[in-house]
Amino acid sequence: MITVLRLEHRVGRDKRMTTHCALAARALGADRMVYTGDHDSKMEENIESVVERWGGCFKVEHRKNWESFLKNFEGKRIYLSMYGLPVESCIDDVKDYDRNLCVVVGGEKVPGDIYNYIDTQIAVTNQPHSEVAALAVFLDRLHEDKEVKLSFDDGSIEVVPKKTGKDVKEDK
Amino acid sequence: MITVLRLEHRVGRDKRMTTHCALAARALGADRMVYTGDHDSKMEENIESVVERWGGCFKVEHRKNWESFLKNFEGKRIYLSMYGLPVESCIDDVKDYDRNLCVVVGGEKVPGDIYNYIDTQIAVTNQPHSEVAALAVFLDRLHEDKEVKLSFDDGSIEVVPKKTGKDVKEDK
Repeated sequence: MITVLRLEHRVGRDKRMTTHCALAARALGADRMVYTGDHDSKMEENIESVVERWGGCFKVEHRKNWESFLKNFEGKRIYLSMYGLPVESCIDDVKDYDRNLCVVVGGEKVPGDIYNYIDTQIAVTNQPHSEVAALAVFLDRLHEDKEVKLSFDDGSIEVVPKKTGKDVKEDK
Repeated sequence: MITVLRLEHRVGRDKRMTTHCALAARALGADRMVYTGDHDSKMEENIESVVERWGGCFKVEHRKNWESFLKNFEGKRIYLSMYGLPVESCIDDVKDYDRNLCVVVGGEKVPGDIYNYIDTQIAVTNQPHSEVAALAVFLDRLHEDKEVKLSFDDGSIEVVPKKTGKDVKEDK
């Protein structure tokens, strides 16, 4: 099981970034996103609505305290950060690990004591960029080609891939 | 040369998404981001400040009109969209193409006539998620392991990768 932990969400300011984290996590094969910071029922409803229409069983859950969540997490806790070890040198070890994974992504300000609660820090390039981008590349590399073949068969809506234009099957 | 075209930026509302697009584009090996919509000098300054400190020659440029930009673009115009052909079946053709590439990413609303101006539509999964995530995975797959070895030697700041903690060399 893959959990994405999104730290310290702020209603309003982080709405789109956190929503994009959750949707990218779902599309690229994670099972749930746990988030801390402000409780945001509107953001949760958006994600649940996507899951309902597009399928799968991705969950989004709010927790009050990331420290206790990480402390009690049974599995490997990976923090995605530009300061970490290069993803290309670590990803095989992560693939070989067959228990629960928690992939931690920060927002604009990450508490300094995060390092007391994680097992390893992994970087998607050591350049400043985007937690959404880093999460997406990490999950894509973790699953290689698997996630693009993921089927969400229980959705009511499905895209028919096209070179140009849009083709969507509804109530399939 | 790889250009990312970000469509219809709105000051305020899109600031972080567009900034993340630009930074992910830079970190993962694109050469510039052109954007349309509102001119946003503050967002441009943020990107330029990253380039100055972290190196490289990534550019960000505003254009008034995406239609004329795409019409006059000499090279292949790829639109990243959930309605497109799967990236895993298209990426080798893109790699084999050795001229200019323009990778178009939308925001929340993409004009319907985009299809009159692009060559092909590529999807990073056919699920709804994030233009930043799609751009990152596309560029990562395009460059395979090259971009993580990209060096931005002329920056004044550099990360020393670590399993935990932060180590940054300044004025190197």
